[in-house]
Amino acid sequence: MATQERAVRTRNALIESAAELFGRDGFEPVSLALISARAGVSSGALHFHFPSKEALAEAVVRLAGQRLDEITSRSTGRPLQMLIDAMHLLAQALRSDAVLRAGFDLSCNSARVEASRDLRRTWQEWVEGALDRAEREGTLAHGVTAQDVANAVVAAAAGIETLGSRDPRWYSHATVTGFWALLLPRLVEGPALGELMASGSAGDCAAFA
Amino acid sequence: MATQERAVRTRNALIESAAELFGRDGFEPVSLALISARAGVSSGALHFHFPSKEALAEAVVRLAGQRLDEITSRSTGRPLQMLIDAMHLLAQALRSDAVLRAGFDLSCNSARVEASRDLRRTWQEWVEGALDRAEREGTLAHGVTAQDVANAVVAAAAGIETLGSRDPRWYSHATVTGFWALLLPRLVEGPALGELMASGSAGDCAAFA
Repeated sequence: MATQERAVRTRNALIESAAELFGRDGFEPVSLALISARAGVSSGALHFHFPSKEALAEAVVRLAGQRLDEITSRSTGRPLQMLIDAMHLLAQALRSDAVLRAGFDLSCNSARVEASRDLRRTWQEWVEGALDRAEREGTLAHGVTAQDVANAVVAAAAGIETLGSRDPRWYSHATVTGFWALLLPRLVEGPALGELMASGSAGDCAAFA
Repeated sequence: MATQERAVRTRNALIESAAELFGRDGFEPVSLALISARAGVSSGALHFHFPSKEALAEAVVRLAGQRLDEITSRSTGRPLQMLIDAMHLLAQALRSDAVLRAGFDLSCNSARVEASRDLRRTWQEWVEGALDRAEREGTLAHGVTAQDVANAVVAAAAGIETLGSRDPRWYSHATVTGFWALLLPRLVEGPALGELMASGSAGDCAAFA
């Protein structure tokens, strides 16, 4: 293995270990020694990559931000289906990805970490953009505003993200599908409703009925 | 002032100061010295009331739990309106009450504090109870299940609670009203919808239309 490749692997192992420990114990109580031990890396190697615990937290937030960007950019097509699909992808990723979970938490909740990004803000802006587009395209039912829908979706997603860290059932496909199955008949009227899939367009379920 | 009354005031001042500091800086970084200084209390008096920072955190959670119980017990009447009113009261209380905010956070997020109650769990059980009752009374529209509505309400409330700690607009009357105005026409059919007030039955706004 080339030196550079080994360095990248070491760096990633440190970020993963830090995310797992921050998620389990919180940012403050976790020591650099514990992080390097969990990653199977020497303390010297840790300090070569990260001068401080804050720098490691910032790396967790950056990597989580990249993964969130991948989720939103993978969702394409009509704005409402795009939004449904992205929320499924986000919940699924939160369930399995300690970096994403810790990145959300550190970037939004920690008073000690001066994160370069606020991931909930990133998500909110993306949701608002999708709903503005849905409103401009005339997809939303009469009397429904893009802002009210955006608030409901952003609040529910932040709630699922927060509650799921203690009880992973919140991250389940069934929970996200139930949310959209409840909301969609209020958002869309007529035959357009039949084209939307609350279970996600990549799912194995039939169209929303 | 009687000695006992003074002791109660001192204890409450310490709980309020601890809640404000935990909310601002997190649990770990806050020292007992900082808490006693903010409360205008001697370090000896703090130790008389609370043997440790964990004991103070537990007192914050207990007091927040009492306030949450007051909110849910103040909401009476038909289950859906009761639910709307309680969500308004909760958001309003979160905006002004550092103990309630810190209580939610400490009881659900902190790995270090072994809280005696999980306030999000308390809220979830209360919401589920109200919606079970709405379902049994035949209030919910055809095809709408109490569990899907409970999940959406619990997720949105947890999101509002979490997002509001950084941006108090989430706690506003308008945000909670917008959520219910969006959801209600999906939950209830016919004339019963006209009797429900998305802005809360104690509000100054007209019935939901």
